[in-house]
Amino acid sequence: MKVAASIFIFFLLLHQPPSASVSPQKSGHRYHPDKPCKRLVLYFHDILFNGTNKANATSAGAAGPTQLGAYQFGLLAVFDDPMTTAPTLASPPVARAQGFYFYDMKSTYNAWFAYTLVFNSTEHKGTVTILGADMMDEKTRDLSVAGGTGDFFMARGVATFATDEVQGFDYFRLKMDIKLYECYN
Amino acid sequence: MKVAASIFIFFLLLHQPPSASVSPQKSGHRYHPDKPCKRLVLYFHDILFNGTNKANATSAGAAGPTQLGAYQFGLLAVFDDPMTTAPTLASPPVARAQGFYFYDMKSTYNAWFAYTLVFNSTEHKGTVTILGADMMDEKTRDLSVAGGTGDFFMARGVATFATDEVQGFDYFRLKMDIKLYECYN
Amino acid sequence: MKVAASIFIFFLLLHQPPSASVSPQKSGHRYHPDKPCKRLVLYFHDILFNGTNKANATSAGAAGPTQLGAYQFGLLAVFDDPMTTAPTLASPPVARAQGFYFYDMKSTYNAWFAYTLVFNSTEHKGTVTILGADMMDEKTRDLSVAGGTGDFFMARGVATFATDEVQGFDYFRLKMDIKLYECYN
Repeated sequence: MKVAASIFIFFLLLHQPPSASVSPQKSGHRYHPDKPCKRLVLYFHDILFNGTNKANATSAGAAGPTQLGAYQFGLLAVFDDPMTTAPTLASPPVARAQGFYFYDMKSTYNAWFAYTLVFNSTEHKGTVTILGADMMDEKTRDLSVAGGTGDFFMARGVATFATDEVQGFDYFRLKMDIKLYECYN
Repeated sequence: MKVAASIFIFFLLLHQPPSASVSPQKSGHRYHPDKPCKRLVLYFHDILFNGTNKANATSAGAAGPTQLGAYQFGLLAVFDDPMTTAPTLASPPVARAQGFYFYDMKSTYNAWFAYTLVFNSTEHKGTVTILGADMMDEKTRDLSVAGGTGDFFMARGVATFATDEVQGFDYFRLKMDIKLYECYN
Repeated sequence: MKVAASIFIFFLLLHQPPSASVSPQKSGHRYHPDKPCKRLVLYFHDILFNGTNKANATSAGAAGPTQLGAYQFGLLAVFDDPMTTAPTLASPPVARAQGFYFYDMKSTYNAWFAYTLVFNSTEHKGTVTILGADMMDEKTRDLSVAGGTGDFFMARGVATFATDEVQGFDYFRLKMDIKLYECYN
C-alpha cells in the first residue's frame, strides 16, 4: 500500500478543503468589484409633477418638504420612471423604475432611494430592487442591490449613480451602472 | 508510478474542482426556484383607516395621494397587518406585517411594498423583511426577501403576491407565497 | 488495477461531495450568529425638528401622524443622524445614518426603519444599508443588513437595536450592534 499512501498525501496537498474556498468569512475574493456576473448601464429619467404637467410627469411629491434647512429636507417623491439605455429621454424605455426618494440633508442636496426596476421585455423579465444613500455632491456613489426576481432571481450587487443632467426641479437624469455579483440565471 | 499517474488522471476527470461548483458567477444552479429551503404561505389583511373604524383599521394613509392621475398616485399607507394561514380575516394571526406601501402609477393601480414579518409564537420567532414592486394587474408578482433574523437568520428569497380579495378601499387581502432559498437555521 | 480500485473507494469515503458542504439548504452552519466577520457597535442620535431647533435638529417629520391610535401611527421622520462610538451626543461622529423611520402601531410605540450608514473617514469608506421592524418595547430587536458598498462591499448581517435613552420627543438614542456575516473586503 505504499503507492496508495503516497497518492493519498499527494491528493491532500492538491486539494484545498472545499470549505476553505467558499467560506465568505475567510475568502476575501469570492466577489470581485471589477467582475460582475451581469451588468446593466441604464439612464433614469425623473420629471416631477408640478400641478400642470400630468401628461409628462413621472414622479410626484407625496410628503414634505419640511422647514429644516433650505434643501427640501423631507420632500418625499414617489416615482414610476422610465429607464433607457441611451441618455436621451425620448429613447425607448427598457424598464420602469418604481419607488421613491426623499431629500435628507440640511446643508446640501442629498437623497435616499428605494426602488424596483421592472423589466418586461423579450430581453429581460423580472425585477431588481435597489436601495441606499444618494450623496448627490459626489461624482459617483454606490447603492445596494438587495434582491432580484425572474431573470434576476436572487441577485445582489452594487448600483453606481452618476448625475447626468439636472434641469432645476423639472427634470433630472441619473446614470445607473448596475453590477450584479450574485447571478443564478 | 504508472498506477499513481493513471489514478491521478482518473480523479481529475471524476472531480469537478470545488470552486466551479460553488462560484455563483459560474453556477447557474445553486438555488432552484422550485426548491426553497423554507416556504411560508400566508394571507395579508389590510383594513385602511377611514376616520371612523379605529377598532378594526390596521393601516392608515400617512401621505398623499397626489393629483397625478386617477389611481391614488403617492398615497402612502403605513400598516401593522395580521398575517394568517387561512384566508379568513378572523383566523388567528401567526405573524404581523409591519411596513408601508404606496401607489405609484398614473394609468392603473400599482404599488410598492416594504415591510417586515414579525413572528413571535412557539412555532417561529424572528423576522423576514420583504420589498419590491406590486404590479397589481398581474395575476402573480414577485418581490424580494432581503433579509431575516431569529429563526430566519440571514434568509433571502422571493415572495410571490396574488390578490385574493378586494373590497373597495375598505379591505384587501393578498396571498403571499414566501420562498426562502438561503436558510441557516 | 486492484490498488487503483481500493484507492478509489477510499477517496469516495474520505471526500464529502463539495456541493454537500456548501449548499445553504443543507448546511445550517455556514454563518454563526456569534461569529460575525465584522462588527460595529455604534450609537444613533436623533433630534426631531420642532420648528425652532434648526441648528440642532437631525430629523424632521415629513408625513403623518394619523389619528389611528395614540402612538403617532404614520408619523414618518426623515433623518440624517450622527453615529458615534461613545454614547454621548457630543462625541465625534464616525458615520452618518441617512434614512427614515415611521411609527406603525395603534397600541404602543413601534417603528420601522430603513437607512444607510455612510462612512467617509480614514478608517472606513462605504455604506451599510439596514432595514426592519423596531419593536420598541423589546429590550433588543434585530433588523437586517441588506447590503453594503465600499469597505462593506456586498455585506449582509443583523443589526441589534437597544434603546439607550429617550427624552420625550426631543431626543432619543439607540445602541446599534451591527454584525456582518458576509464580508468580502
